[in-house]
Amino acid sequence: MKFPPFLLAAAVLLLPFSSSATTGPASPAAGPNATAKAAPAVRIDPTYWWVGMKNPKLQLLVNAPGIGNTMAILAAYPGVTIESQQKLESANYLIINLIIAPATKPGLLKLGLKSGNTYRPYTYELRARNTDPQRTQGLTQADFIYMLMPDRFSNGDPKNDVVKGTRVNHIARDSMYARHGGDLRGIQNHFDYFKKLGATAIWPTPVIENDMPKASYHGYAVTDCYKIDPRYGTNAEYQQFVKAAHADGLKVVQDIVLNHWGSYHHLFLDKPAADWFHAFPTFTRSNYNAFALNDPYGSKRDYTLFNDGWFDTTMPDVNQGNPLVATYIIQNFLWWVESTGIDGYRIDTYPYSEPNFLMAWGKAIADEYPKLAQFGEAWEGTEAEQAFFAQNILPPVNGFKSNLPGVLDFQISFAISDALKTENGDLSKLYHALQGDWLYVDATRNVPFLDNHDMSRFYSVIGEDFGKFKTGIAWLLTLRGTPQLYYGTEVLMKNFSNPDGKVREDFPGGFAGDKTDYFSARPGQAGEAFDYVSKLALYRKAHPVLSSGKLMQFIPQDGVYTYFRYDDGACVMIIANNTKDEKKVDGTRFAERFAGFSSGVEVVSGAVISDLNTLRVPAHTAWVVELRK
Amino acid sequence: MKFPPFLLAAAVLLLPFSSSATTGPASPAAGPNATAKAAPAVRIDPTYWWVGMKNPKLQLLVNAPGIGNTMAILAAYPGVTIESQQKLESANYLIINLIIAPATKPGLLKLGLKSGNTYRPYTYELRARNTDPQRTQGLTQADFIYMLMPDRFSNGDPKNDVVKGTRVNHIARDSMYARHGGDLRGIQNHFDYFKKLGATAIWPTPVIENDMPKASYHGYAVTDCYKIDPRYGTNAEYQQFVKAAHADGLKVVQDIVLNHWGSYHHLFLDKPAADWFHAFPTFTRSNYNAFALNDPYGSKRDYTLFNDGWFDTTMPDVNQGNPLVATYIIQNFLWWVESTGIDGYRIDTYPYSEPNFLMAWGKAIADEYPKLAQFGEAWEGTEAEQAFFAQNILPPVNGFKSNLPGVLDFQISFAISDALKTENGDLSKLYHALQGDWLYVDATRNVPFLDNHDMSRFYSVIGEDFGKFKTGIAWLLTLRGTPQLYYGTEVLMKNFSNPDGKVREDFPGGFAGDKTDYFSARPGQAGEAFDYVSKLALYRKAHPVLSSGKLMQFIPQDGVYTYFRYDDGACVMIIANNTKDEKKVDGTRFAERFAGFSSGVEVVSGAVISDLNTLRVPAHTAWVVELRK
Repeated sequence: MKFPPFLLAAAVLLLPFSSSATTGPASPAAGPNATAKAAPAVRIDPTYWWVGMKNPKLQLLVNAPGIGNTMAILAAYPGVTIESQQKLESANYLIINLIIAPATKPGLLKLGLKSGNTYRPYTYELRARNTDPQRTQGLTQADFIYMLMPDRFSNGDPKNDVVKGTRVNHIARDSMYARHGGDLRGIQNHFDYFKKLGATAIWPTPVIENDMPKASYHGYAVTDCYKIDPRYGTNAEYQQFVKAAHADGLKVVQDIVLNHWGSYHHLFLDKPAADWFHAFPTFTRSNYNAFALNDPYGSKRDYTLFNDGWFDTTMPDVNQGNPLVATYIIQNFLWWVESTGIDGYRIDTYPYSEPNFLMAWGKAIADEYPKLAQFGEAWEGTEAEQAFFAQNILPPVNGFKSNLPGVLDFQISFAISDALKTENGDLSKLYHALQGDWLYVDATRNVPFLDNHDMSRFYSVIGEDFGKFKTGIAWLLTLRGTPQLYYGTEVLMKNFSNPDGKVREDFPGGFAGDKTDYFSARPGQAGEAFDYVSKLALYRKAHPVLSSGKLMQFIPQDGVYTYFRYDDGACVMIIANNTKDEKKVDGTRFAERFAGFSSGVEVVSGAVISDLNTLRVPAHTAWVVELRK
Repeated sequence: MKFPPFLLAAAVLLLPFSSSATTGPASPAAGPNATAKAAPAVRIDPTYWWVGMKNPKLQLLVNAPGIGNTMAILAAYPGVTIESQQKLESANYLIINLIIAPATKPGLLKLGLKSGNTYRPYTYELRARNTDPQRTQGLTQADFIYMLMPDRFSNGDPKNDVVKGTRVNHIARDSMYARHGGDLRGIQNHFDYFKKLGATAIWPTPVIENDMPKASYHGYAVTDCYKIDPRYGTNAEYQQFVKAAHADGLKVVQDIVLNHWGSYHHLFLDKPAADWFHAFPTFTRSNYNAFALNDPYGSKRDYTLFNDGWFDTTMPDVNQGNPLVATYIIQNFLWWVESTGIDGYRIDTYPYSEPNFLMAWGKAIADEYPKLAQFGEAWEGTEAEQAFFAQNILPPVNGFKSNLPGVLDFQISFAISDALKTENGDLSKLYHALQGDWLYVDATRNVPFLDNHDMSRFYSVIGEDFGKFKTGIAWLLTLRGTPQLYYGTEVLMKNFSNPDGKVREDFPGGFAGDKTDYFSARPGQAGEAFDYVSKLALYRKAHPVLSSGKLMQFIPQDGVYTYFRYDDGACVMIIANNTKDEKKVDGTRFAERFAGFSSGVEVVSGAVISDLNTLRVPAHTAWVVELRK
């Protein structure tokens, strides 16, 4: 056990411990010897840890008033030693660096905090790892992700709508900025709905505590990195939620934010040190311009503003360049995987984090959980810039080489919307978006999508044209990658994202008293839409060629775009006419893929296509055609 | 000297030589011994060659009726041997592969062609290389290229307007498809005009023979790879043209086509072998879709159509996969550099050539002429695809890694037009186009431009707005790379490219009888435009910071885009307001570049900017501001 010299010198002032209760999970416990005083509550992050992790190091952040003036002493525990400890700028924090040898047994560490003649005993739990094979299976192209906003999807537990001690004391379903009462139980109540739709994975927007006084429903302003938002459930309920999903054949993606926290985060309200956050003389917003990162002509100012500027007034930018902060975040996201068994991380605002941190974070997570899916939000305007933020074939640029397996494929989303939103829309963008995959190590790990919580709803974007809707769905469910559907798109929920709240409306039937319940019945075109998605998704699930098969695309011609998914035995043609006229397509062009097949069946309608060499595709129609010998 | 066995076996049939005269440059000459018969004319490509080339190999293509049935015998010449010879499918051709040892002296090779008992003597010239240091200087960013169409620029020699023996027997200035009579002498007569404008290099569209029956004026349908089109001048006149340009401080870029020839090319009319060209059962056009080359999901069909399909009905696609053809083309373009001293090649339809050939061609040219500039036309829709065709930071894709130093920067051209053609046009595309340089090994070798012979004229595209015109010119002449201006843009020539001929109109004053002569006087706004280009180009010429200086750009904000060219001593700010309102710009944003400077002078107007921290940029205005200490 080695103390940095400054600590030995600094540990002279004994502050009285606060007697107020803390909400931290660490409980006071009997000290190692009888002469110790009763110990007031402290908060230790991570809440607990595990033996047998690949990385033997563990950084504890201990928080209590004046705790920085103490020194940690560890009672003998085979395999565990204190490597070092560190006082921070604030006397309310102490860093304790442990080393946990590989063969260490689970149990309770006895950690004493000593200051002068005062000794206060605590315990810290080291758990055994959970080896259930259903946990953390990752995602493959065979999955189909249903994305939803927990506050807006379904209220399964009215008791947690308003939670005492949080900064919001009401729900208000008529306000797009207020909480509406949705929760984990509400999602879990509808696992059958996801399965009926053909989805295999659920991605709720962040479920971590957002104890903000306003607009706290969206989840991207985290206030406690180790706690599920109590309006959604408890940590234990979240663990149970993941377990139940797995038992039901559904995977869970956790939506996380590395770049920023909410301004009511406890570590922002009471900072361990000023340099845990990026600060400017006055509020300074990010320029939202990731191009500054790898602009060969970029200014330092634009780089710094992008990376260090705040995402919003209520979202302080975390200084990941501080190694203590970096470790704090990395451990936090190892903790969530190990404590829950989730299958993947969706990483919000991926490019906004510091490049070196992103590489360290991604490596640490993948080293420990190689099966865990990771895909990031890189909302960039060009194919090359999007690829810059994923594993790509490029050399490092400015020292950065992304190790992120995949990205949310905004290029695909833009291309589909652009193709469909105008009459005779340009199909070449979609062709180009796919062709752009040459820049990736493996673009099949990308996540194509039509819309999400930040974008205008797909059905509105395409002018509420049902033929175009089906075309978009057909592409989504047959392109490479793991497709993502935003809740409500399957029942034609509408609106433009102005403001955001308009595309975050409650799912009909998710809340007590709803006049319509789309979970049980979907009348009219909403039902047709659901059925189209469901039929195709279930076909996809039953026919691996649509997920793991190779892809071959042909240059769009005459308003018709055609590609194939194929493997040794099967071949499915996706052909879309994006014009207002029927198109006659000379199928001999596709001889490379038609070889060995003589006819086809459109998998949703069941229509037979008897002559592959002369295809007559109706206006604004996409066919998904299983080829027959 | 080694003969392939099949040749020894095949050389049994003696065909009588044709007695008709050939137009080939090789002259019959006395044979090595007195018993030889008089030899009919043959054509040998290359026309002549040089001693002291880095590559000691030389492939001669000998053409005369029945010549394939002869065998070449070389009279003793120190350093020169016949490595092999090869009969082709057509009896009218013979390949002779020579090796020319490094120390070989210039002189006339005595080459006899023997068939049975018949022996016909010829000579082949090996010249000394020209070491004049003014030759082949290449281009740098300090250059400014004036691009023109020789047929449409100026008629300096009426005697060559119609040349006997060519397939066109008239000129017709009122027809956009006919020849108008312009020529090399016409260009040379106006060297003073280019210099007054500030241009330092001339790029005429191809000057090689296009002896086509129709629309032969544009130059991209070559009919004889070794001959200047006689309507422009002779080979000797072209050599003199380059020499005169160099003497006048002007460089010359030769526009060349690797991918295709004209359908009246002598090697197409009388093919050495069918596999010298790509052929299809019926005429098959290229799909013009270079994305097929590196599409991870591309079909063989789309790849083949792109690469092997014909560029047009009159432009057969040359099979560069045939090593004899590849060598023929490579030698041809070594020949033009060595025989003329030109400074650079502009390579038409670069992506359309076969990838392996392009790499071999580029290497052979650069090995022999490392100073020669090379830039290609890669008219692609995305930044990554454009970069794919230049030296870039990417690994090889499908075995292709371009060794082309630079490309015509269509991304810049698209971005400038897009920014300026609408009210409050989006400036981010231009910012992104520059940022996209991260993909290149050295994007300063790219050639930015506003328009060319295939595009609508810039002044028309931007709605004939003079403020926007100046903005475009200001960007063109201050961005990185070697800028190119299309003839007439400097005097506001107009028109949309529908059809092409409308943007290929005669330069006013270039032809006898022209009512206006813009060479001598440019009234009104044409004069203002010329003066703006000229002032800025001459300033650029005198201030290396604008060409060799570093570039720093700032994210466009509020309709204003700002970048800087700077070096250790100087700094020039280019700030453009692309809105209809005056914009007040907080200059403290640019502190990184303003440090050490206190004021500025707009270099064209001479206006003084006394307060750098508060810039008031008028509507639709670009300033080029030299900063002052």
